[in-house]
Amino acid sequence: MEEHNRVKVDIFGHTYTLRGPAMPERLQRVAAFVDQKMHEIYDKNPQLDLQTLAVLTAINMADSYEQLLTEYEALVDSLEIRQDHED
Amino acid sequence: MEEHNRVKVDIFGHTYTLRGPAMPERLQRVAAFVDQKMHEIYDKNPQLDLQTLAVLTAINMADSYEQLLTEYEALVDSLEIRQDHED
Repeated sequence: MEEHNRVKVDIFGHTYTLRGPAMPERLQRVAAFVDQKMHEIYDKNPQLDLQTLAVLTAINMADSYEQLLTEYEALVDSLEIRQDHED
Repeated sequence: MEEHNRVKVDIFGHTYTLRGPAMPERLQRVAAFVDQKMHEIYDKNPQLDLQTLAVLTAINMADSYEQLLTEYEALVDSLEIRQDHED
């Protein structure tokens, strides 16, 4: 059976209990990253309610993920092309 | 001056106006990704309020980002090691 860790994290003044296979240190680090990004977005848009702020933060994270995925795939593709040339 | 696109996106039944340098198609794709992830998390936790759901979605996105970043850095490191060997 898969072991699940439980960890309480603080994000933008609220406490959430996270449960998952990831190590507590990792969950804390990820939560701190989200908290920091929420504050950055809030500082530029202090009129936002918390729910909208959280959705915009999720969009921001998803956008960063997609950008990194594009770079990762481009790197993998460039390696495959190099390997083709070596054959 | 940097041009900013404005695009309306629907996420979990709410409409948000996004503004940024990214192309509208990309913003729509990223928003659809967030919408899908919110529904996945909600299906497993239907008791969540929308704000908590959005925060958990942001955490989920940040976790995926960190995991991908780890893989990306490991790939770059492995290339640097290979290059060192070639010198």
